[in-house]
Amino acid sequence: MINKLVSKIQKTGAPIVVGLDPMLSYIPEHIVKKAYAEKGANLEGVAAAIVEYNKGIVDAVCDLVPAVKPQIAMYEQFGIPGLIAFKETVDYCKSKDLVVIGDIKRGDIGSTSAAYATGHLGKVEIEGKTFRGFEEDFVTVNPYLGTDGVKPFVDVCKEEKKGIFVLVKTSNPSSGEFQDQKVDGKPLYEMVGAMVDKWGADCMGDSYSYVGAVVGATYPEMGKILRDIMPKSYILVPGYGAQGGKGKDLVHFFNKDGLGAIVNSSRGIIAAYKQEKYASYGESGYADAARAAVLDMKEDIESALA
Amino acid sequence: MINKLVSKIQKTGAPIVVGLDPMLSYIPEHIVKKAYAEKGANLEGVAAAIVEYNKGIVDAVCDLVPAVKPQIAMYEQFGIPGLIAFKETVDYCKSKDLVVIGDIKRGDIGSTSAAYATGHLGKVEIEGKTFRGFEEDFVTVNPYLGTDGVKPFVDVCKEEKKGIFVLVKTSNPSSGEFQDQKVDGKPLYEMVGAMVDKWGADCMGDSYSYVGAVVGATYPEMGKILRDIMPKSYILVPGYGAQGGKGKDLVHFFNKDGLGAIVNSSRGIIAAYKQEKYASYGESGYADAARAAVLDMKEDIESALA
Repeated sequence: MINKLVSKIQKTGAPIVVGLDPMLSYIPEHIVKKAYAEKGANLEGVAAAIVEYNKGIVDAVCDLVPAVKPQIAMYEQFGIPGLIAFKETVDYCKSKDLVVIGDIKRGDIGSTSAAYATGHLGKVEIEGKTFRGFEEDFVTVNPYLGTDGVKPFVDVCKEEKKGIFVLVKTSNPSSGEFQDQKVDGKPLYEMVGAMVDKWGADCMGDSYSYVGAVVGATYPEMGKILRDIMPKSYILVPGYGAQGGKGKDLVHFFNKDGLGAIVNSSRGIIAAYKQEKYASYGESGYADAARAAVLDMKEDIESALA
Repeated sequence: MINKLVSKIQKTGAPIVVGLDPMLSYIPEHIVKKAYAEKGANLEGVAAAIVEYNKGIVDAVCDLVPAVKPQIAMYEQFGIPGLIAFKETVDYCKSKDLVVIGDIKRGDIGSTSAAYATGHLGKVEIEGKTFRGFEEDFVTVNPYLGTDGVKPFVDVCKEEKKGIFVLVKTSNPSSGEFQDQKVDGKPLYEMVGAMVDKWGADCMGDSYSYVGAVVGATYPEMGKILRDIMPKSYILVPGYGAQGGKGKDLVHFFNKDGLGAIVNSSRGIIAAYKQEKYASYGESGYADAARAAVLDMKEDIESALA
């Protein structure tokens, strides 16, 4: 799957992942009204609105980008109907041949991480038949529990040729509270980065490993150091756009081959129509606004890397 | 909810939480067969078997213990049907007046943590009506993203009078890889523990705060230090039994008032019938075996604390 991701990035020329993190307030009124009329003004109605909204965006951008990243929390907040919408979104994106990164940030002790890995990347056997719970291509993983919390994901990745992105240095303001603490004179995130490099060493695709890392666009100097520590790991870079990261901040996250990083934007794309810049598209043109925002982001990254 | 937890611990005399972490291999054949006959040998069939199995255990132990802790990964591995079984388990336990600790180990950047907190502890408003996704009383939270990843959970706890347990020192063998790293001469988990104390300071119940901590029974010496660092936090102690923690290891996790800790056992209780000690109950007596294991665990803790 890392080979597919790299090849799709090369084909589209866009190291961009669209974060499908729907908030109810982003969804145009006509979609919400239709969904409530069909399913009721309840969790099922919200879930139907989310799926409809996502499909519009996916249809509008699927030829431009290699991947999408649905944030499961935005679905989980609406309980079971929301999680059904998550699954429908994953399945729809896969039907469009997009690489799907499930932003689930799971991580637990060994046997429990194995269950998460099974549910999101793997399969279960029941009476000789195979079933899959969710079917993402990649998921994000929290490293706080150490190797035996991450290893079960790596094992399933090897079996399924899928991948993970391990949280190394997150994009949020307080990420430094623990991640930046100095251990033997070096910040903890460097130590986690070195482990990512190690975990990925024996599960390599053609040029990059199945084990990537999450490093926030909001910390470009740290990105530079982490790029060197994990040369074979793809870096998933959140924090571009709405969180404050800019194109010029991104250059250090890439390798000299022009590869090695994929930049996420969520709000900045999926709710682009709410920005002054794209306001002329209107609510009804939310999907076209998203497409325009992707094209602008592509140009911003291209000019930064040039 | 922390007051309810404390009062139920006092009433039952059992600082014990039963981990409802079903593995398919634990579930007696007669339950599995019945479920497959009704729902098919598929994810729905497994989910039905899990709920039936859980209900048997809950019915057998609900008068003995204050709380249960379903581990969501064990349900999530079976996709949507599994998550429906998780919800049904939570709801059934609440109908029995048990305190429900959702072992979800979520944690993300601010807006995303807020969505998780809403989904598991809070509510959403849709056209003026209130809906709840899942309805646990407590959840476990991963601290790697720092204060702005934890704060949204605390905010919802204040509003809903619910609680969280933050991962401080986990029970697994490799937990030390990052958690034990020395920061200014002290291990990282002590720093996280100090933050737990701080996060809980302004959301106090009668004697304990809404913000508890997870500290593994497998690290009793660290438990002793953390007990002092977080005097007002309840400690959720996993790792007893199957993972190797013993009654005598638990004494340091408690305060002098005999309170302050609640010890989890999962496999050791729910699959007790598979142990030689309880083999005479047989598969069909799995629930009675669970009850016997709870009584033995209660005695083990009592004698350790005496």
